[in-house]
Amino acid sequence: MRDYGLWENGLSTPIEALEIYDGMSVSDLVRGFSGCAFGAGRLADAVRIYREMLEDSGCTLFFGLAGAMVPAGMRRVVSGEIRAGHIDVLVTTGANMVHDLIEALGLSHYKGCDLVDDAMLHRHGINRIYDVFLPEESFSDLEEWLRDVVFPDLPRVVSIRELSSLIGARLDCRDSILASAYEAQVPVFCPALQDSIIGLQAWLYRETNPFTIDALADIGEIVNLCYDAERAGAFFVGGGVAKNFILQSMLVTPKQFDYAIQLTMDRPETGGLSGATLDEASSWGKIYENAKTVTVYSDATITLPLIIAASRDGLEID
Amino acid sequence: MRDYGLWENGLSTPIEALEIYDGMSVSDLVRGFSGCAFGAGRLADAVRIYREMLEDSGCTLFFGLAGAMVPAGMRRVVSGEIRAGHIDVLVTTGANMVHDLIEALGLSHYKGCDLVDDAMLHRHGINRIYDVFLPEESFSDLEEWLRDVVFPDLPRVVSIRELSSLIGARLDCRDSILASAYEAQVPVFCPALQDSIIGLQAWLYRETNPFTIDALADIGEIVNLCYDAERAGAFFVGGGVAKNFILQSMLVTPKQFDYAIQLTMDRPETGGLSGATLDEASSWGKIYENAKTVTVYSDATITLPLIIAASRDGLEID
Amino acid sequence: MRDYGLWENGLSTPIEALEIYDGMSVSDLVRGFSGCAFGAGRLADAVRIYREMLEDSGCTLFFGLAGAMVPAGMRRVVSGEIRAGHIDVLVTTGANMVHDLIEALGLSHYKGCDLVDDAMLHRHGINRIYDVFLPEESFSDLEEWLRDVVFPDLPRVVSIRELSSLIGARLDCRDSILASAYEAQVPVFCPALQDSIIGLQAWLYRETNPFTIDALADIGEIVNLCYDAERAGAFFVGGGVAKNFILQSMLVTPKQFDYAIQLTMDRPETGGLSGATLDEASSWGKIYENAKTVTVYSDATITLPLIIAASRDGLEID
Amino acid sequence: MRDYGLWENGLSTPIEALEIYDGMSVSDLVRGFSGCAFGAGRLADAVRIYREMLEDSGCTLFFGLAGAMVPAGMRRVVSGEIRAGHIDVLVTTGANMVHDLIEALGLSHYKGCDLVDDAMLHRHGINRIYDVFLPEESFSDLEEWLRDVVFPDLPRVVSIRELSSLIGARLDCRDSILASAYEAQVPVFCPALQDSIIGLQAWLYRETNPFTIDALADIGEIVNLCYDAERAGAFFVGGGVAKNFILQSMLVTPKQFDYAIQLTMDRPETGGLSGATLDEASSWGKIYENAKTVTVYSDATITLPLIIAASRDGLEID
Repeated sequence: MRDYGLWENGLSTPIEALEIYDGMSVSDLVRGFSGCAFGAGRLADAVRIYREMLEDSGCTLFFGLAGAMVPAGMRRVVSGEIRAGHIDVLVTTGANMVHDLIEALGLSHYKGCDLVDDAMLHRHGINRIYDVFLPEESFSDLEEWLRDVVFPDLPRVVSIRELSSLIGARLDCRDSILASAYEAQVPVFCPALQDSIIGLQAWLYRETNPFTIDALADIGEIVNLCYDAERAGAFFVGGGVAKNFILQSMLVTPKQFDYAIQLTMDRPETGGLSGATLDEASSWGKIYENAKTVTVYSDATITLPLIIAASRDGLEID
Repeated sequence: MRDYGLWENGLSTPIEALEIYDGMSVSDLVRGFSGCAFGAGRLADAVRIYREMLEDSGCTLFFGLAGAMVPAGMRRVVSGEIRAGHIDVLVTTGANMVHDLIEALGLSHYKGCDLVDDAMLHRHGINRIYDVFLPEESFSDLEEWLRDVVFPDLPRVVSIRELSSLIGARLDCRDSILASAYEAQVPVFCPALQDSIIGLQAWLYRETNPFTIDALADIGEIVNLCYDAERAGAFFVGGGVAKNFILQSMLVTPKQFDYAIQLTMDRPETGGLSGATLDEASSWGKIYENAKTVTVYSDATITLPLIIAASRDGLEID
Repeated sequence: MRDYGLWENGLSTPIEALEIYDGMSVSDLVRGFSGCAFGAGRLADAVRIYREMLEDSGCTLFFGLAGAMVPAGMRRVVSGEIRAGHIDVLVTTGANMVHDLIEALGLSHYKGCDLVDDAMLHRHGINRIYDVFLPEESFSDLEEWLRDVVFPDLPRVVSIRELSSLIGARLDCRDSILASAYEAQVPVFCPALQDSIIGLQAWLYRETNPFTIDALADIGEIVNLCYDAERAGAFFVGGGVAKNFILQSMLVTPKQFDYAIQLTMDRPETGGLSGATLDEASSWGKIYENAKTVTVYSDATITLPLIIAASRDGLEID
Repeated sequence: MRDYGLWENGLSTPIEALEIYDGMSVSDLVRGFSGCAFGAGRLADAVRIYREMLEDSGCTLFFGLAGAMVPAGMRRVVSGEIRAGHIDVLVTTGANMVHDLIEALGLSHYKGCDLVDDAMLHRHGINRIYDVFLPEESFSDLEEWLRDVVFPDLPRVVSIRELSSLIGARLDCRDSILASAYEAQVPVFCPALQDSIIGLQAWLYRETNPFTIDALADIGEIVNLCYDAERAGAFFVGGGVAKNFILQSMLVTPKQFDYAIQLTMDRPETGGLSGATLDEASSWGKIYENAKTVTVYSDATITLPLIIAASRDGLEID
């Protein structure tokens, strides 16, 4: 409904058929997409909106990262955006933190396949994430490192954001999301941290070394970031807790989001927050009714890199 | 792959075309589904597995409730199963708790529609959840109740499970999930509680009345429930944190799940946990390789009631 | 947009939480759905609209049957509706005709599973349709029957509708869709018949016994059915050619559809006709803007039987 | 199951995190994808397989084009591949032919939006295809052209392939799919042509000027193309009749497909042919069990151009 008036301007913009040629840059391709419709048109819109956010010096960019993006190989795409100063606030899942840590510790995820005998994988100590394989022993290394390097330095009461920073500070890995965020002073929130191996290990550790993760401590910090934002943009990769936490934090301020991009395969019709349209968020006062928004319905391991790569170029889309 | 050997038994079970007749009971319909394939066949499998779980007196049933099931009208389906003694452990989202509370306080969600002008809804103070409308003022009532009735009784350090129990204890509403769980002594876990209006209000309240929600406190409790389960069944409505928290809690025990049912519209190919197959969980050692499992790919507001209603009857499916 | 004004009537209809009880009939369940939202609410709408169509004596009902509904066990659901006089015109795919024929000839589809070694299945002469197995030799029987019993009686020029009738006339099987349609004088259209085993066999046969299937011959017949309909209802199971052929046939008349129900898992965002909303069809003048329409987004092997069973009862939903 | 043995080679190929840099070409991006998993990894596989097909001089490439790709702006992507000699056989829908014709006649599709009042669009004579608008009057021009320029030259009996060629021959438009196919002598099949405006117009025309479209005439031609192919590759954009017609044509030969690429958003679990995996086709003997195949689950308006653009470059992916 947001775009209700669009067609009243008449049939003003013909679809321009995309032409493929040799040696196309990603920007060339997305420029071509901007004359198209369906997913291609939406992807070009996403690039245009993302560039607007980045060029708007008063805009604070909140990045919500759900899904198993790190195992799929998307770690550097995110850490690169952090280092480029494009992400001001990161909200993610425990899983993405865990898998970022695994890679930062020099361990690897492996190309596997989705049609295998999972029972046999289990007997070989291999965990599967769709078509990615991960040796189970990676977790032992991760756990040892947390116990030896991170947890001993924890204060008696710690917020999840502080814990993420502490982990980032202990890592020496340019490509790590957590390390890059630490270096760039980008806060990393993770509302359901206990729902991850990091949470499990923290719980085990405190059996003998008492400390408390204060579940509410981060709310004030992210709400203040919303308050202080002259303008605010949201970039959602997937939905879940990351999406909701970003949106609800704005809800308690008098402001709303000015820009929003959502990359998802979820659908609205089953009513879940992950698949909810960005328009729906306007009814709640989370996103301004005249905000610049777009949702791209495609696999984010394809669309996220496309959008980032195209936004890096001197791309003009009108 | 789990069922790899099935067909080796030859072409033993012909599809039996379902016949519809007047006055069919839900059980009749599901008995008919048991001769069918695709979603119908899977739904009949889900009923059979659910009944097996319920009849297995040594089985502890973990129920993961994600999505906006309460706004859609599924509150009594869940609270009914709790009162019937079918659910031993509930893991859910802050949103389902919030909306359960709203109804328990005598407020309502309303039938709306998904194709509306969300900006106009916002101006009328109406929040939208797909095709459900909720007056924004409901939240004021909820917030006041939390501040007046629940938060003053909180101890200085509280777990999320304890907070859910406390809320349930304060409610007088047979149909409420939280009240029914309190009465039936079913623990309710909600790993990302801070990602909800309850979390926001708790944070506001403690600005003046200090207390701490201990994020790790629940892990021990749910892990013990896993340890103590002679056998364990999981029933996942949607994915997200609820699904992962149940599965990871079993991971730290020597046991695995013996039964698992998943109702979802998410798909495996994008690699997220929500859409992951139950077989994938076997590679992690979360679900036994010979466990009885099924995923039904359809809207859970249709399939959950169907499964529950059919399982209530003296249904025999073989 | 069709329902744009709905909410202006205010928050008039509270969601009524569904309650499950012992011995529920399908009608009871759907009556409960009618107080709910998301898929459950839409399914109750579908039952109400379907009943309205059936009770509207001036309404011609066009039924579009795509997908592999017959292999999944849905044959009797459709043939039952035909025999009950609920379907006036059937448009389907070659595949559904082929699989109906296979069963009508006394052959069977078998319960299989989707996670198997397809190469091994092939070596055993087993064809797979998701989790249904079909012995390859069934096709030999089918082909022989067509060559011996049907094709010799073909006139030199035949329409696809005439061919379907001829097949139906030769079958002696109460549960067959084609036989029931023949008996009930329900025309069966199948615009892409050549895209099926029946088409392939017809082509082989005419190498030695010349005859012609006239691709355009059916258009006049279905367009006349549209013209003659006092009112018209469409029931789409899946999309594809069946959906489009029904909608386009109305397009050349001054009329439009008064009712439409669509059961699908396809999504609108990729722009294909199968996933297109019923509202979109209003912009083309295929469905009246104030028609009664609903789309249920769930597996049709679950929702179709539910809707049919509920509509059979003396169900009142308001 | 096809890749069952993969992991037995051990954990040999670490995921390599994709790095985005300034001025990336599409080939650079896809080279980066080749180290990733989920959709990104599959897209890189698709490029590698497509290049293998193109470099395999004995390979006949069958291209199945479903969905509303032309209205979305994908016309030149397809016609470009035809002119480049990459497509040997095209199977498509009536809709894609109609919309190709509209553009070839100098008319346009327009950028619209999906959230509009379809009833108002209808009153303004605008047809909607998701977020594309098309003036209804375009069809009058199309119909006049067919009546004046194409139909008078039809023989008394014509195949659909001959009709497509005739249309292509009459067009003077480099970017047209039909014109490019005619020029490149690429046969265009369209099994359900009657299910389109071209079919409707042909039917109207023959009311006064008798001719027959012979529905079976094309089968022999496409089956011969299958027979004659030393090796065969299939590229499916969407599913439907186009996909099935290509696969079934191979079925009647002793051969199978050696390569297959599928771009779709459909899912396997509902059992339809469109969402069926390529492995399933191996159980039928349509695709060799050791064929090189991949399915990319994302919007084809994004993935098709990406794959074509990357395959144009001197890309090496191993």
